[in-house]
Amino acid sequence: MNYKMMGRFNALILAIEGVFMLPALIICLVGREYSVAMAFVYSMLITLGISLVLFLLTRKAKKDFFASEGLVCVGLSWIVMSLTGCLPFFLSGQIPSFVDALFETVSGFTTTGASILSEVEHLSKGILYWRSFTNWLGGMGVLVFLLAIVPVGGKNEGFTMHLLRAESPGPSVGKLVPKMRKTASILYLTYIVLTVGDILFLLFGGMSVFDAVCTAMSTAGTGGFGVRNDSIASFSPYIQWVCTVFMLLFGVNFSLYYLILLGQVKAVFKSEELRLYLGIVIGSVAMITLNISHAFQSVGEAIRQAGFQVASILTTTGFSTVDYETWPTFSRSILFVLMLIGGCAGSTSGGLKIMRVLMLIKATGRNIGQILHPNKVRKIRIDGQVVDEKTLVNTSFYFFAYMALIFISFLILSLDTPSLLSDLSAVVACVNNIGPGLEMVGPTGNYGSYSILSKLVLIFDMLAGRLELFPMLVLFSKSAWVRRA
Amino acid sequence: MNYKMMGRFNALILAIEGVFMLPALIICLVGREYSVAMAFVYSMLITLGISLVLFLLTRKAKKDFFASEGLVCVGLSWIVMSLTGCLPFFLSGQIPSFVDALFETVSGFTTTGASILSEVEHLSKGILYWRSFTNWLGGMGVLVFLLAIVPVGGKNEGFTMHLLRAESPGPSVGKLVPKMRKTASILYLTYIVLTVGDILFLLFGGMSVFDAVCTAMSTAGTGGFGVRNDSIASFSPYIQWVCTVFMLLFGVNFSLYYLILLGQVKAVFKSEELRLYLGIVIGSVAMITLNISHAFQSVGEAIRQAGFQVASILTTTGFSTVDYETWPTFSRSILFVLMLIGGCAGSTSGGLKIMRVLMLIKATGRNIGQILHPNKVRKIRIDGQVVDEKTLVNTSFYFFAYMALIFISFLILSLDTPSLLSDLSAVVACVNNIGPGLEMVGPTGNYGSYSILSKLVLIFDMLAGRLELFPMLVLFSKSAWVRRA
Repeated sequence: MNYKMMGRFNALILAIEGVFMLPALIICLVGREYSVAMAFVYSMLITLGISLVLFLLTRKAKKDFFASEGLVCVGLSWIVMSLTGCLPFFLSGQIPSFVDALFETVSGFTTTGASILSEVEHLSKGILYWRSFTNWLGGMGVLVFLLAIVPVGGKNEGFTMHLLRAESPGPSVGKLVPKMRKTASILYLTYIVLTVGDILFLLFGGMSVFDAVCTAMSTAGTGGFGVRNDSIASFSPYIQWVCTVFMLLFGVNFSLYYLILLGQVKAVFKSEELRLYLGIVIGSVAMITLNISHAFQSVGEAIRQAGFQVASILTTTGFSTVDYETWPTFSRSILFVLMLIGGCAGSTSGGLKIMRVLMLIKATGRNIGQILHPNKVRKIRIDGQVVDEKTLVNTSFYFFAYMALIFISFLILSLDTPSLLSDLSAVVACVNNIGPGLEMVGPTGNYGSYSILSKLVLIFDMLAGRLELFPMLVLFSKSAWVRRA
Repeated sequence: MNYKMMGRFNALILAIEGVFMLPALIICLVGREYSVAMAFVYSMLITLGISLVLFLLTRKAKKDFFASEGLVCVGLSWIVMSLTGCLPFFLSGQIPSFVDALFETVSGFTTTGASILSEVEHLSKGILYWRSFTNWLGGMGVLVFLLAIVPVGGKNEGFTMHLLRAESPGPSVGKLVPKMRKTASILYLTYIVLTVGDILFLLFGGMSVFDAVCTAMSTAGTGGFGVRNDSIASFSPYIQWVCTVFMLLFGVNFSLYYLILLGQVKAVFKSEELRLYLGIVIGSVAMITLNISHAFQSVGEAIRQAGFQVASILTTTGFSTVDYETWPTFSRSILFVLMLIGGCAGSTSGGLKIMRVLMLIKATGRNIGQILHPNKVRKIRIDGQVVDEKTLVNTSFYFFAYMALIFISFLILSLDTPSLLSDLSAVVACVNNIGPGLEMVGPTGNYGSYSILSKLVLIFDMLAGRLELFPMLVLFSKSAWVRRA
């Protein structure tokens, strides 16, 4: 195990995190929230201090890296980043319990948006900003950011690839351009442009600058931390539509935006993943609208509510404009199933991902076909390209590991609350980085009343979900820690 | 498609079914239930009549058969068998709705034990017997029975193998002896011996002969149709323990009993599937006992209740001695997860099967290992034998198809009732051939209030679950019906 390189890596990540606390500090100072400002000062000092010590200790790190070390490194860095990222919440006293502060931070970075707070409007502006910022940074990933600005691996493309693969969502990471570093830059630039676009549209709807920036950051990361107690419900229908559209945009594979930039618009609309994604959105909105329309004054309002909730759950954002717990069983069931699917691979959304669902459907269909005609060999193609058999097999085992994680966590959670559906949906909402679940953890509820054990399990689940299981599971594997020649 | 052979096959199955209605008819006559007896007479006439017509139409059938035809044949035969098997319920007026009668019959043959009846004690004895007998016949399978007594395929071992494979539970069908026909005979003999053993133990506990025979048949098939409204609750603790032990025995892979007969007792206890099975039972009983002990007068009673419910749910029998809906969330969650697992491959139980869970755990662990050490090739072994990679891959896709079936059915069911958990557990309980689920379909509830659409979906699910998906899914595949050279 190349411990030095891993230390150096974490030093860089902590440095970035520390610097990113600066805007929150300034917001505190502008708003004259001096005690919270001090919490940010201490947090920055601690974060940057640890970073400096790690940096000094790891000056002569070798740059060769195994894939397994990449996984361990990414898993660790997310834990370290969360432990320091929660300091502002904890030191300011705005979230007095450390586990709660950690839960909120992990929920932020993993873009889950699950909260232990029953209300957020009393929070300091600086803290609200930091909360939404964790959504934004976690959405595209801090490592991807690091790779975009610092030549960490030098000319070692394999190293960079290992890291990017561990942090990026989806069954296979596509390189947009031959150089990984440039790929990371393009991804972040697209991300920033879309976020700014979202801010402008929100401002146009009359939102304050602060609200618009926070809301756009939470939307961009498909995180879902809102600035109001009722999430987006009390904003205007225009704002709600803007959020719906941008949630859906951030749930799309970012490589498609690159294709648009290259002028290959036709290829974008031929993308099978995009088609399935849009198909699921339209189908779900149509079914829910029919199911709930009697409860709303106009069909337009029913469509808006259905559209918002479907976009929010499918992209794993977790904003809400209505308490869907009051909806009929059919609509709630659709939302529950959408929770398990998630957005597109290569987007900022969580969940199983549309691409994996597509692969599993095709591969399972092929397997049934093979039972009928055992001698016919058929390859699986997506967008005309043959999918590697190994990717298919890995995806199917990924699906099992994913369900196993859900059911094991569910059993532990059920130790401490009175509702089976709350527990099951809480786990599903955390593993898939959505935020709200059903019943007790529905849109009007929160995670505050869970026990410390349950919160720790959910923290693990959020991280495992965001990093797509393996970087977290590998941390528990002895062989990952064995030093090799 | 070899339609003639398929017709001949269904003719034989209907003949067996018709003959098997005779004991029920005799019970009716002895009990002077003449109107019900007439229903059995008509049912036998119709069933045997169709059988005769089919037999005459298919006299010159060729005996060559493809694997796909085996699947279609098995899928069809279960539907045909259910359509005629429900006639006694329907014609006697004891279940006035045809869909309900079909539901009850499919539930019987698939050994689900889900009922649309709120009480059974008012039913005629003949009907009660027939109800439990469907559990028994469906448990080991009517095709396996057919293969054991009639040389259907002649010397065509491949043909026999295709059929047995389609009807027998588990990811791979082991031949006990080189000849498939002898394998089928050994399986049925073991089944009969165990059933008779169960009857004797029940009689010893003071049960009436009728109750003992019916209860033993429902236990043997892991079906769960009881003769009392409260299932097994009002029987003595001794009877409850006998049921617990026999449910567990029928949940074991029958090939292990053959090994015992051959004197290889050591090999039996080395079976990894058996160990995992017993481990799950002991672990679940221990956790539930701790969780519920405060509600019972003695620990012994808590263990009995926990043991009975765990055995009943894990082996997918579905008997109950207590309303576990009143238990704490943790215990109910354990039962819910057990619902998804099921008993051992090659037993009469339903569900995913312990063997598949074992394979998936091992293969997923191996896959994580391969991420760490990509160059290390590792084979999966179970009981010292290398598991074919194709079986592993098929099992993982099977798992996806299984979950997909559950979620799609769940969405349709949620159209008509007020509880998400009822619907989800109803589907899980039917796909896994268990019977009772949670909330509305819990131990004290029933499936009577579901709509006709939901009942039809559940009928499909029960059949798909019993036949392990593919024979039912294949019926919808165009290519299965294409005539080939």
